[in-house]
Amino acid sequence: MIDKNFYKNNGPFTLAQVAEITNAVLADVGQAEEKIHEIASMENAGARDICFFYDRKAKEKAGNIKAKACITNEDLKAFVPAGVAVLICTDPKMAFLKLNKALYAEYTPTAGIDSTARIDPSAKIGKNCFIGAHVVIEENVIIGDNCRLEAGCVIARGCQIGNACRIGVNAYISYCLMGSNCYIYSGARIGCDGFGFNFENGCHVRIPQIGRVIIGNDVEIGANTCVDRGALDDTVIGDGCRIDNLVQIAHNDKMGRGCVIVSQTGIAGSCTFGDYVVCGGQSGFADHLTVGSGAQIAAQSGIMRDIAPGAVVMGSPAVPFKDYMRQVSFLQRNSKK
Amino acid sequence: MIDKNFYKNNGPFTLAQVAEITNAVLADVGQAEEKIHEIASMENAGARDICFFYDRKAKEKAGNIKAKACITNEDLKAFVPAGVAVLICTDPKMAFLKLNKALYAEYTPTAGIDSTARIDPSAKIGKNCFIGAHVVIEENVIIGDNCRLEAGCVIARGCQIGNACRIGVNAYISYCLMGSNCYIYSGARIGCDGFGFNFENGCHVRIPQIGRVIIGNDVEIGANTCVDRGALDDTVIGDGCRIDNLVQIAHNDKMGRGCVIVSQTGIAGSCTFGDYVVCGGQSGFADHLTVGSGAQIAAQSGIMRDIAPGAVVMGSPAVPFKDYMRQVSFLQRNSKK
Amino acid sequence: MIDKNFYKNNGPFTLAQVAEITNAVLADVGQAEEKIHEIASMENAGARDICFFYDRKAKEKAGNIKAKACITNEDLKAFVPAGVAVLICTDPKMAFLKLNKALYAEYTPTAGIDSTARIDPSAKIGKNCFIGAHVVIEENVIIGDNCRLEAGCVIARGCQIGNACRIGVNAYISYCLMGSNCYIYSGARIGCDGFGFNFENGCHVRIPQIGRVIIGNDVEIGANTCVDRGALDDTVIGDGCRIDNLVQIAHNDKMGRGCVIVSQTGIAGSCTFGDYVVCGGQSGFADHLTVGSGAQIAAQSGIMRDIAPGAVVMGSPAVPFKDYMRQVSFLQRNSKK
Repeated sequence: MIDKNFYKNNGPFTLAQVAEITNAVLADVGQAEEKIHEIASMENAGARDICFFYDRKAKEKAGNIKAKACITNEDLKAFVPAGVAVLICTDPKMAFLKLNKALYAEYTPTAGIDSTARIDPSAKIGKNCFIGAHVVIEENVIIGDNCRLEAGCVIARGCQIGNACRIGVNAYISYCLMGSNCYIYSGARIGCDGFGFNFENGCHVRIPQIGRVIIGNDVEIGANTCVDRGALDDTVIGDGCRIDNLVQIAHNDKMGRGCVIVSQTGIAGSCTFGDYVVCGGQSGFADHLTVGSGAQIAAQSGIMRDIAPGAVVMGSPAVPFKDYMRQVSFLQRNSKK
Repeated sequence: MIDKNFYKNNGPFTLAQVAEITNAVLADVGQAEEKIHEIASMENAGARDICFFYDRKAKEKAGNIKAKACITNEDLKAFVPAGVAVLICTDPKMAFLKLNKALYAEYTPTAGIDSTARIDPSAKIGKNCFIGAHVVIEENVIIGDNCRLEAGCVIARGCQIGNACRIGVNAYISYCLMGSNCYIYSGARIGCDGFGFNFENGCHVRIPQIGRVIIGNDVEIGANTCVDRGALDDTVIGDGCRIDNLVQIAHNDKMGRGCVIVSQTGIAGSCTFGDYVVCGGQSGFADHLTVGSGAQIAAQSGIMRDIAPGAVVMGSPAVPFKDYMRQVSFLQRNSKK
Repeated sequence: MIDKNFYKNNGPFTLAQVAEITNAVLADVGQAEEKIHEIASMENAGARDICFFYDRKAKEKAGNIKAKACITNEDLKAFVPAGVAVLICTDPKMAFLKLNKALYAEYTPTAGIDSTARIDPSAKIGKNCFIGAHVVIEENVIIGDNCRLEAGCVIARGCQIGNACRIGVNAYISYCLMGSNCYIYSGARIGCDGFGFNFENGCHVRIPQIGRVIIGNDVEIGANTCVDRGALDDTVIGDGCRIDNLVQIAHNDKMGRGCVIVSQTGIAGSCTFGDYVVCGGQSGFADHLTVGSGAQIAAQSGIMRDIAPGAVVMGSPAVPFKDYMRQVSFLQRNSKK
């Protein structure tokens, strides 16, 4: 059961309602008025719950479903036991997402400005924003409508934030122009100085960093992730990018649309990514690389050369996926002799 | 000498007191009334200090001990120079821990609620808590007795925290039920949204995350570590787990008792760990894996398959420790030809 | 054009002024009174801008320079097109740094103490400091002159900070003595407990950590980086070290002068580094290692043994750079058979 302490439950829903929300077809229309109260996993669902079954690998578990109802596809429906109401659709995972959104809701804070927030008089704040406790908004900041700035976040001088953005607890935004519908998670550090030095007389002399961070629309940047600002040009995160927790993005990196960067990846300075690049967790990139659109970089890979569009690479140093598997197999086979 | 600016010194202690505290036997009872003022390392200890000697590898250094007294075991006592009072026990490392705890103490803040803390009237706070400056406690939070909430931490709506927990500076706790005696370090991010998306029409559509983070008793979670909440089921950290700094724990991960996760490890979603699993630094785990109790994962390993209980693995992709050493040796031998 | 929202522009400068600032020689003194308004990259510079050309690899791009002026060296000047004023110097990269510093300036906050800062009466704060919103300064802290403590940072009991230090937004400093001219970035965690336990009766019992973090002069510690305090001796960061974002430095680590530690590197406890060690991103070090002065550790390397002064190593486990290249080449060649 989803914890009511944390999430609102908008249900129960009848199976007719569920079918409508999810674009699914109820196998037995006689069950249209039966109700579900909760979403649960295949293993945990009981008589008040609905579950989703879309992973063929789980077909052995399907026989034990105890749910009131199950949403699945044409292919898998035969595995669902009799007695469980079946709803059929083409994409049960998307159906899950839709029902989830309809049935549950996070509590969202009421718009308003907490009395402990420090807001410079020169800042402009849009309509219907929530500005939490101890938030700091500096000179000349512009914030759009419907934004949610959580407790203790700091928006530094001159930053511009679009509409419907959410800035997490204790996040720090500086030297940044941000589009709309972005979510910057708790503890993210946007716009810090890039790591650039010139060695002179035994000292690493800081090179002043005078660029910005440009963030598109519909971007997510994970908890405790760091995105440094550009040295001279800008660091750019394209529309729709999804960046996980604890990622490092260095100065002058440029990402196209819809890239997915999994946790603990590190990208050195001045790299250029195309669209929809996917980086597995803990992957690392040397500086000044170009990574083509649609490239897929496996977890823990080390990238030291440019990557062609659509390439799938793995290993450190990274090689095409098939070569990597050959290397692994060669080593395992031969080292045992 | 331990810095009195930072730690209280409850000494000096006589060697009789030391023997009692550490369950050690003083070799020469005539020295029972001699005093030690400080603990120091074997190298640095002087005439006012006591040191500990339990690492056989350090036996060459033992001859240079200048301490007033030394706690060691039966095996090693012969290496301690004459003139140093010797105390013998079976576990000198545990003796160190005990004497350390008895002789020194951190300064702990006096219980009370700072005037700058923002506490929702619906929150319930136990007895004898310290609530620091700029702390935020939201609706319906329940906090046990003897807790220490350090400056700027945020406890989000609905969270429950047991007794004697310490929440570090600027940490963020959300969607979380936590047991007693836990220590969440500065900057840790507990309960953020898991990294789950469905790709549709060129967009990565966020899957609502409606689970929680369940933390057992006596758990430590390191500085700037991230533990995401579950997607539907919960993320679970078992009793007695020790998680270091900058670790990533993704949605739905479940850990048994007493696991030790060293810094910068990343664990992808829906992994299940048994009890007392040990993960070396920078190790990485693919999603949906099962890792058996007592498994040991070496630093920088990449885990792509289930790991049997008690297995010791290393490498990326990880193999049994002996196979890894063979691979390394094969490669070093053959690549030089 | 550098964004005036974020940076002040002290220009325009005549080329005579530029030559003086950068120690360069203007090839055609007839151009001494011409003006530049901005610094730009070779690709983007236009008629109001000056650019820098010092990378031989960029010599093909040099022909397309559209800048008013270009600073380069004797070797490369022939590649600059006619019509672009040329300034010659021996180190154009250092010239860039100097002109950058002269032409642009970050906005710095006016000295003063924000009314929302919580400062213990026993703390001593030097002249001309900026203490931002919601900053917390605890008992017996001493802070030098000209420091900048940004919003929400916390300086814990007993810490001492030298002159002209900058402590970033929401950073946490504890158990620390810090020299002058240091910059601790947003979200850094200095002085947390080291990760030290003794296993006893099924529990990992915390070993009290009673050391400090000693930070020299002119040190930078990156965003969300963690530096744990010593267990008994101190953790030490030498003068002039540059530590990037998301780095883990464990208890008792000791670094000499001028070390450079790139992002996401992890150094286990009780390691000793000489001077000017360079660690590439995501490199990892086992505990109790000695790394000699001038050693260079490539990105993603795994260090399990001591490293000699000046050694250049790579791989996991790390080997001399040439051996690493041989191993990579051996594996690629042979696995394809």
